[in-house]
Amino acid sequence: MKIVLIGASGTVGSAIVQELGQRHDIIAVGRNSGQHQVDITRSDSIRALFERIGKVDAIVSAAGGLHFGPLAEMTAEQFKIGLHDKLLGQVDLALIGQHYLNEGGSITLTSGIVSAEPIRYGANASAVNSAIDGFVRGAAVELQGRRINAVSPSVLQESWGSYGPYFLGFEAVPAQRVALAYSRSVEGAQTGRVFQVW
Amino acid sequence: MKIVLIGASGTVGSAIVQELGQRHDIIAVGRNSGQHQVDITRSDSIRALFERIGKVDAIVSAAGGLHFGPLAEMTAEQFKIGLHDKLLGQVDLALIGQHYLNEGGSITLTSGIVSAEPIRYGANASAVNSAIDGFVRGAAVELQGRRINAVSPSVLQESWGSYGPYFLGFEAVPAQRVALAYSRSVEGAQTGRVFQVW
Repeated sequence: MKIVLIGASGTVGSAIVQELGQRHDIIAVGRNSGQHQVDITRSDSIRALFERIGKVDAIVSAAGGLHFGPLAEMTAEQFKIGLHDKLLGQVDLALIGQHYLNEGGSITLTSGIVSAEPIRYGANASAVNSAIDGFVRGAAVELQGRRINAVSPSVLQESWGSYGPYFLGFEAVPAQRVALAYSRSVEGAQTGRVFQVW
Repeated sequence: MKIVLIGASGTVGSAIVQELGQRHDIIAVGRNSGQHQVDITRSDSIRALFERIGKVDAIVSAAGGLHFGPLAEMTAEQFKIGLHDKLLGQVDLALIGQHYLNEGGSITLTSGIVSAEPIRYGANASAVNSAIDGFVRGAAVELQGRRINAVSPSVLQESWGSYGPYFLGFEAVPAQRVALAYSRSVEGAQTGRVFQVW
């Protein structure tokens, strides 16, 4: 399979390259690194990426920023960070990418455990991750002959140094285990699923 | 209780007025109608509303637009309609409203069944409604001494004429039954809950 991976240089992205790269051609894409660059917050940048790489068998996204901060101080402008980056960025990858996806192909987006297990400072993450899970449920019923899923990881062992204090009591998971869920999504047969790695 | 109700003139809003108006003071707010007007897509408009009405015991929102249309033709700009109106509009009502909410008070937002039960043309609705449900789970853990819930109705009997064709096979519910869920949210004791009326 020809798989385009957005966010390839990240912790999850690198683990996906290791897992899926054993069996498939990975086109590594990043904001500033990788074989190709894309800014997922801009439709023209996403369109230019697909025009350069052509049709693919799988689109995998492990990209997107969120806002973390106290609810009592949160503003609409801060909330938009997650809406426009992790949510709309990944949704737009799917909306544009569907037209460059071969028959039988798949789209895999990334959400996260905070959708269901809220944490302090995580209201934006809870909303955005839930929205991504909802979007794949909704889009799956219309993506004829092609599939769409989400992977929803817990906090990563590799990121514990930065995020651990917000996730006390959560079981951190190794990125390598999270990568298996992307394999299930890309190489399996299900659609409209949220693969939880918790 | 002093309850501010945004979307008071809508089908759900009118049923909420009937139900909660029996026991409480309702301040009816609409985009163009009601005792006060607000545009929930603008923070300054929301702030001006609360400055006019002062502190309240409950904020209830039954407002917000979505985009319905085929996934194959959907653009980021269309997807933003639901993000900025039903999602960010209601979130911003909560973010600003929390500072005008009396101790022990509550916020109730409106999502919808398409979060979990997708329909054709409903990818935006699935994402936005899921995001609202996620937001209340996330925000509830930080709203000390105050509560936040969502009501997630099925398609309304009263709206069957317009929306029925998209919801064939769904059990439509009367707005009056949906209004009971707002009563549970406002007059009950739970927080972080999504009250499904399906």
